Amino acid sequence: MLPTILDLTSLRAAYRQGMTPLDLVEAVIERRAASKDPAIFITSTPDEQLRAAAGDLMARAPTANSLPLWGVPFAVKDNIDVAGLPTTAACPAFAYKPTADATVVARLKAAGAIVIGKTNLDQFATGLNGTRSPHGAPRSVFDASYISGGSSSGSSVAVASGLATFALGTDTAGSGRVPAALNNLVGIKPTPGLLSNSGVVPACRSVDCVTIFAGTVGDGVAIRKVAEGFDPTDPFSRAPEWASLPVNGLRVGILEGVEREFFGDGEVERLYDLAIERARALGVTIVPFDYAPFREAAALLYEGPWVAERLAAVEDFLATNADDFDPTVRKIIEGAKGKTAVDAFNGRYRLEELRRRTQAEWKEVDVLLLPTAPTTYTVADMIADPIILNGRLGRYTNFVNLLDCAAIAIPAGFGNNGLPAGVTLVAPAFTDDALAPLADALHRAAASGMGVDRHASISEASRVGPVEDGFVPIVVVGAHLTGMPLNHQLTGPGGRLLKSCRTAGDYRLFALPGTVPPKPGLIREPGFDGPGLEVEVWMMPPDAFGHFVQNIPGPLGVGKVLLDDGSTVSGFLCEMYAVEFARDITHLGGWRAYANTLA
Amino acid sequence: MLPTILDLTSLRAAYRQGMTPLDLVEAVIERRAASKDPAIFITSTPDEQLRAAAGDLMARAPTANSLPLWGVPFAVKDNIDVAGLPTTAACPAFAYKPTADATVVARLKAAGAIVIGKTNLDQFATGLNGTRSPHGAPRSVFDASYISGGSSSGSSVAVASGLATFALGTDTAGSGRVPAALNNLVGIKPTPGLLSNSGVVPACRSVDCVTIFAGTVGDGVAIRKVAEGFDPTDPFSRAPEWASLPVNGLRVGILEGVEREFFGDGEVERLYDLAIERARALGVTIVPFDYAPFREAAALLYEGPWVAERLAAVEDFLATNADDFDPTVRKIIEGAKGKTAVDAFNGRYRLEELRRRTQAEWKEVDVLLLPTAPTTYTVADMIADPIILNGRLGRYTNFVNLLDCAAIAIPAGFGNNGLPAGVTLVAPAFTDDALAPLADALHRAAASGMGVDRHASISEASRVGPVEDGFVPIVVVGAHLTGMPLNHQLTGPGGRLLKSCRTAGDYRLFALPGTVPPKPGLIREPGFDGPGLEVEVWMMPPDAFGHFVQNIPGPLGVGKVLLDDGSTVSGFLCEMYAVEFARDITHLGGWRAYANTLA
Repeated sequence: MLPTILDLTSLRAAYRQGMTPLDLVEAVIERRAASKDPAIFITSTPDEQLRAAAGDLMARAPTANSLPLWGVPFAVKDNIDVAGLPTTAACPAFAYKPTADATVVARLKAAGAIVIGKTNLDQFATGLNGTRSPHGAPRSVFDASYISGGSSSGSSVAVASGLATFALGTDTAGSGRVPAALNNLVGIKPTPGLLSNSGVVPACRSVDCVTIFAGTVGDGVAIRKVAEGFDPTDPFSRAPEWASLPVNGLRVGILEGVEREFFGDGEVERLYDLAIERARALGVTIVPFDYAPFREAAALLYEGPWVAERLAAVEDFLATNADDFDPTVRKIIEGAKGKTAVDAFNGRYRLEELRRRTQAEWKEVDVLLLPTAPTTYTVADMIADPIILNGRLGRYTNFVNLLDCAAIAIPAGFGNNGLPAGVTLVAPAFTDDALAPLADALHRAAASGMGVDRHASISEASRVGPVEDGFVPIVVVGAHLTGMPLNHQLTGPGGRLLKSCRTAGDYRLFALPGTVPPKPGLIREPGFDGPGLEVEVWMMPPDAFGHFVQNIPGPLGVGKVLLDDGSTVSGFLCEMYAVEFARDITHLGGWRAYANTLA
Repeated sequence: MLPTILDLTSLRAAYRQGMTPLDLVEAVIERRAASKDPAIFITSTPDEQLRAAAGDLMARAPTANSLPLWGVPFAVKDNIDVAGLPTTAACPAFAYKPTADATVVARLKAAGAIVIGKTNLDQFATGLNGTRSPHGAPRSVFDASYISGGSSSGSSVAVASGLATFALGTDTAGSGRVPAALNNLVGIKPTPGLLSNSGVVPACRSVDCVTIFAGTVGDGVAIRKVAEGFDPTDPFSRAPEWASLPVNGLRVGILEGVEREFFGDGEVERLYDLAIERARALGVTIVPFDYAPFREAAALLYEGPWVAERLAAVEDFLATNADDFDPTVRKIIEGAKGKTAVDAFNGRYRLEELRRRTQAEWKEVDVLLLPTAPTTYTVADMIADPIILNGRLGRYTNFVNLLDCAAIAIPAGFGNNGLPAGVTLVAPAFTDDALAPLADALHRAAASGMGVDRHASISEASRVGPVEDGFVPIVVVGAHLTGMPLNHQLTGPGGRLLKSCRTAGDYRLFALPGTVPPKPGLIREPGFDGPGLEVEVWMMPPDAFGHFVQNIPGPLGVGKVLLDDGSTVSGFLCEMYAVEFARDITHLGGWRAYANTLA
């Protein structure tokens, strides 16, 4: 039996137990037909095409789960090309039928995923609310009078209602995050350029990002890794230069004072505060920061010249088809007509000044923890005041792409009104992986289920472990131990303690005469049956380790040390000649005990 | 006696021999008065102010050469602020009197340099020729009927005629390079953002660079290092992330086929070919490349939306003072009035597409060697056809800042007409230091003197040595020697051989039993009087060295090895227990001799 939410773990388990992709697509067809929301899809993949896709997959890769996304159903926002299905951007007159998949779609299909349809959106991805479409407004899966969020409205509802394991969105102002918040989902907003935009209808080409809606952070990250990768056909595609975040002592920035704005929504504010407390309980350091420069950058996206990118994207079509636009979308895009090239460059200058101001904040915090959207609205309210209310939804999202950040939006629980809220972790470019463990831990701590299923549990299989940061180990024996005089040589360049333990029993320890500060020499003597020596294993960045080794004075050096758990790890050794007249202190069990006798 | 050209070496030697900064400024005052070119300066530092500056310096730092630029005279392009002197940008109506130095000027003054005046320029730095100024056209120091090049016209002539050791220019399209070429000088065009633009009148803020004219590459680099550095007050300032270039096998790209355009100037083409031959003789690999995407990017600077940056910089002033503009400059800047924000973003998209195309070329070449300017013109010709001819001058320079490159322009000798030509080395951002050794070597090989003095010799003191690339040394003893089975572990990650040598005499070498491939163990035994062992010293990137050490299996490790020249270097050592039953092969003098016995 498939659960309500088709997360990767559940789906793979079902496949392991004998379900086939053909069974899966039948289930999707059934659920799609039973859906109460008629506005999710602009084009559904026809039933027969779905069955054919499942059959093709089984022919190409017969073994269950033999591809990374074997038989995984996904929905695609209708501004992203899927070969054979029309791309409309929610503007029927704009429709064209692409012959090739967008790069991201092609990668996902190659990994075994199956497209179930093209989803509704705010027309030309212009909006954060989901009501700006001639195909109707998808609704919150928790209350049909409320908006789903946008512009990736149909994508979020498809996942949240269990029609797909994941969905592709796009995100310029927050379109991959706000709908996640309003439907109790995870929204992966990659660093700009990490996922290719080739085959995607542009909104603001210089800042557009393809995003992923999923039930869990682990799912979202796994899917992102399939979809991502440098694409020479997209001029804005970038080869990743992964950035790390501190594993210990992570500083998480939160809103304070006048920058806390929820437009009167006490429930969302309360859920934000609870998320902060969950983060604190996870051991991070909570640090209030000044949101003002980020807020001012956010305002540039619609109030500054960037709206001209939206005009650039559809200029020819607008000239001939102005009446085919959603009136609000048309008004926004036409607002760019008066903007000059001087305005564009002045906007750039303003952004660079604000970037400089935000850099000062990034010196104080590693990650921002923000409300995803400060509140939500009914469809009726939104239609009555479409621009002002939409602007409020983007208060905490609009700056992220302009300032070249990565973000992960996660559920933050439910208000007393039964509506969910979300929080988003934001950090500088290429922290996509580094952000994920905290995002996953916060999502689990929120215990708010996935999508429409508030009681779904998040599987252990989807847990995001600490990032493999490429650090290398070194066993330290003497003056580099915690609290000893040279320990700063490890901590200074970012080293961190992995564990305290002992060497194997066949090592002797000597106090080297004449060393400043005093240092021991560790010598292996196979056959000797000693107590093992107290040591610490530290992890260091490889280049720092390289410099560290370079700076070790003779007779010490770095070789391999056998530990009492049988592992062999790089660590301090000593040339034999230097211990000829040295005192054997092996019986003390370690350098710390000896150092105490000196004090 | 001061030589004609006041290069740093000559000046410092004169100071060492007893000349004082007071003497120096008297000499400058004399030379300035005797100058035959009345158009070099817009504002000369008054004689009394010069004398006062010299006196202040001697009070502040009495010892000769006790500051990096102690008593070094320099000229400043009149779009860069010097406190107390007007900044005019060659537009008298625009003039203002700054109370603070531009950041770069402040840094240079703090290092002991003395401002001798503000130099003439193409108005608002709009031009590459030097004739667009109400203060007249500075002339080539080799023929007064010819242009000096611009826009940093007065700065180049001041240095080339011996009035200053160096001068500051600015460079958007090529203004810090073309005047260097036309006056037999070095032009240092730093990576955008490396030198602060705070206190500089903008031309195109997003791509403007402060530059340095000097007699030698070594001088220019030394001065750049004083002037550079992150400046939080300039939103476009960047902290450098230095990039390296290959030390061996450098691939130098040259023009070929239809991209070779000298507008009929056979002399400049001949000098370009000679420069290529000099590069080849220096051991680099010459590789023709496709200049087309660079040329197309170059065209964007004036034909695309970037000219709107020039308008943005003076928009308010233009509205009230249009008649105060040079007519050509006004025409160019007003040309931006019709450009829309859509044009601006479309220009950005086009640039990103071209950047992608140039990336393909950068895979094939490390450095571009280009003509600095393809030809030159008389002042009369230039005034008769000011826009077309100016455009030709920028054919090989206009792309460099748009594509975020560093460049060094150097002299390339003289044509039969007595006029100099130049070539420019261009490479991606932050190769500023990495470019310098080749630029210096090419300049020396050209043997064309400095500035007006065609016979000046370039001092050894100013020679630019290979870049300190941060590589770390490791002494290898056995299987990692050149030609041995594990040598690829050094060469794979970019290691290079520094030298072959011997250890000190108190080492023994053992053939370790049971190792695959066979490996030796090096053991120090103070007091032992042996032959020393044959070893090699390799240089490795620190992170690769870190990984290398991690992968060394016990009983081997890395400690310090004493070499026969008395130096102590990181290198392979062996734990003592492992040689207990090993064969002592010390008498063979090294592992290679032993390995030959195995073959």
